[in-house]
Amino acid sequence: MRLKIAILTVGSELLEGEQADTNTAAIGRILGAHGYRIRESLTVGDVEADIEEALEDLGRRRDAVIVTGGLGPTSDDLTARVAARVFKRRLTLNEEALRQIGEHFQKLGRPMHPRNEKQALLPQKVQVLPNSRGTAPGFYLSHQGKGFFFLPGVPDEMEAMLEASVIPRLRERSGVDFPQQEKVFKIFGLSEPKVEELLESATLPEGVHLAFGVEFPLVLVKLRAQGQEAGSLLAPAEETVRKILGNFLIAVGRDTPEETVARMFHRTGRTLALAESCTGGLVAKRLTDLPGASAFLERAAVTYANSAKRDWLAVPGEVLDKDGAVSRPCALAMARGIRRAAGTDLGLSITGIAGPEGGTPEKPVGTVFIALASETEEKVQGYRFPGDREKVRLLAATMALEWLRRYLGALPPAEPE
Amino acid sequence: MRLKIAILTVGSELLEGEQADTNTAAIGRILGAHGYRIRESLTVGDVEADIEEALEDLGRRRDAVIVTGGLGPTSDDLTARVAARVFKRRLTLNEEALRQIGEHFQKLGRPMHPRNEKQALLPQKVQVLPNSRGTAPGFYLSHQGKGFFFLPGVPDEMEAMLEASVIPRLRERSGVDFPQQEKVFKIFGLSEPKVEELLESATLPEGVHLAFGVEFPLVLVKLRAQGQEAGSLLAPAEETVRKILGNFLIAVGRDTPEETVARMFHRTGRTLALAESCTGGLVAKRLTDLPGASAFLERAAVTYANSAKRDWLAVPGEVLDKDGAVSRPCALAMARGIRRAAGTDLGLSITGIAGPEGGTPEKPVGTVFIALASETEEKVQGYRFPGDREKVRLLAATMALEWLRRYLGALPPAEPE
Repeated sequence: MRLKIAILTVGSELLEGEQADTNTAAIGRILGAHGYRIRESLTVGDVEADIEEALEDLGRRRDAVIVTGGLGPTSDDLTARVAARVFKRRLTLNEEALRQIGEHFQKLGRPMHPRNEKQALLPQKVQVLPNSRGTAPGFYLSHQGKGFFFLPGVPDEMEAMLEASVIPRLRERSGVDFPQQEKVFKIFGLSEPKVEELLESATLPEGVHLAFGVEFPLVLVKLRAQGQEAGSLLAPAEETVRKILGNFLIAVGRDTPEETVARMFHRTGRTLALAESCTGGLVAKRLTDLPGASAFLERAAVTYANSAKRDWLAVPGEVLDKDGAVSRPCALAMARGIRRAAGTDLGLSITGIAGPEGGTPEKPVGTVFIALASETEEKVQGYRFPGDREKVRLLAATMALEWLRRYLGALPPAEPE
Repeated sequence: MRLKIAILTVGSELLEGEQADTNTAAIGRILGAHGYRIRESLTVGDVEADIEEALEDLGRRRDAVIVTGGLGPTSDDLTARVAARVFKRRLTLNEEALRQIGEHFQKLGRPMHPRNEKQALLPQKVQVLPNSRGTAPGFYLSHQGKGFFFLPGVPDEMEAMLEASVIPRLRERSGVDFPQQEKVFKIFGLSEPKVEELLESATLPEGVHLAFGVEFPLVLVKLRAQGQEAGSLLAPAEETVRKILGNFLIAVGRDTPEETVARMFHRTGRTLALAESCTGGLVAKRLTDLPGASAFLERAAVTYANSAKRDWLAVPGEVLDKDGAVSRPCALAMARGIRRAAGTDLGLSITGIAGPEGGTPEKPVGTVFIALASETEEKVQGYRFPGDREKVRLLAATMALEWLRRYLGALPPAEPE
């Protein structure tokens, strides 16, 4: 039996523009990995009537409903109370839940705030779902053959509980997973219609479905297949996609471009130093989001001012005076200078005009130079990226990562020490 | 008449965990500013039957429906086709839409891909909504007294069209805005129950509604009032909140902590240099997300390796050998060193262990030292932040911004030059 699963996220902040709902995506990702598909996701505010209507409506149309949010300690957290009403159960202080909340504060070494007791007020006859990372336990109840999971809205707490408490119960209900396998290819440097055109003439095995998406600045190509032979269907399809788009393939699966690049640094044993101007530390930030970046990233300089370019990167004064900070010679000097200062294998630089101010007719907003220096080679290129400040910075940083990917991809693995 | 407005976002990538829906939040924010409230937001995949059911269901229950996504050029973009079926209209090549798409490519100076023609295939008898930033025009249709707006899923395109084409039509329908006014206070350093407790005893004017939220690592306090006197009700309520929480108030309204700090730098005319270790450029990145950061941020160093701490920040070798890179003396030396190297008013440093590796019993993951050096003062403090790598980095970076806020907040404005 294929379960029809719906998500209900509760929180006025999600409808009022203060916060984007990231829980739906996280649930979709985790359930998808176990072969479950989400049919719909609904968001309502902290309004009793709206939560009530949503629970009733989704309960009618779906087999399982995963509810997040509204379990917190404050007075606008209404989910447990509304659930009690909808499913005609009394709201009582759940001893098991209270014990778990107490234990959580004990572990933190902090006193429990009396207000947190409210989080143990649950409908009767539910299974308490432990929360290993936060105060609010979740709960599970079954009503007229449908399963309802109530989880806190805090993303990392919710995710851990999905794996620990929701997946096992879904599996009990559906008997068996129907795993859908998927391969995602992340393309940088080609437009979405161009990607679709390139793939149109490709022959994919029957049973392999092709889909597209955009995750700016990347275009996503997704291959999907279902059932027992999914793996053997996807393998040749993947080869076809790699043959056609391989040159522009910046990451695969859940990897980000920075993860691809970090893995290549670990594989090749090369080291890096960065000199960023218009991206202001974005490349360094992205590479250090990942654990282990210190193994290859020696240092990074955000050199906004010319004085910093001179002191730290030894950019010659005449380059700054004659060509300017946003120029091919300056980018080259920055890459060379940071490499020499850090004593790394590679030096990479980015200098440009991210906007909205600072553009000129010759060098409009979006003008960016990227340079890479190694022991044997120096390379520099100019770009004119479209879009606003955020897009220009994102395009420039991603292009810099793409340069590293292409450079490192051509290298052999490091010798074992 | 108060319009009941719903959002429908279309895209399998939103349910499968590849991408979070940010459009609902953006629509909520923009409509909220004009006094409109979203009642619910539904997401379905690129599945004809599901889009159809959603359009029919929302059309029954709501006055206006804003649909985003599924207008792209590829074969899994189904929205226009399904709309034609649901509203019983023929799908035809819309000349006006085709002209707009052609103009867009002309402006870009690029040839139009034949596939983009598909984006002009629209239901009959619709109003085309121009897209000033991308290829896909939107469309508006009215059916049985309900209004349906179809917009592309690309956030910045969608947002511009909301302001230009949706708001005016909503206003026509509802006759007049019912503006709800809201003040949001962003708190750093207090837990959510603590914040609620502190505010509980406060007397707020009748008609002012209080709500809470979390946007990690910030706690949000929201004051709301409706109608003509909203402004005069909110003013004294705001004063009360400021009196109680002012010390922990890191930002107000839509401002981020970095915007608060940037504004204070502009106001006081002070300059800054950063030395980041465990945050890897996150503070620099956040400050340079904003235009105009070059006016106060002279440079930033991401000094992962000890060699970088020695060269650029003149951290004494004996500090590194004796106390280690994650220590009070090292943080102080880094702040002092970056300030001297850059010649700025302020030097700020962060050094710590973000994890998951690198912790020891004396210095577990989450140990972070922050230091601030100015001409007259040097300050350093150690923290033990809870959570994983991402949380530790976020807490450390936000705490650093909080230090700058407190320091700059005590200064007078710069003298006019």
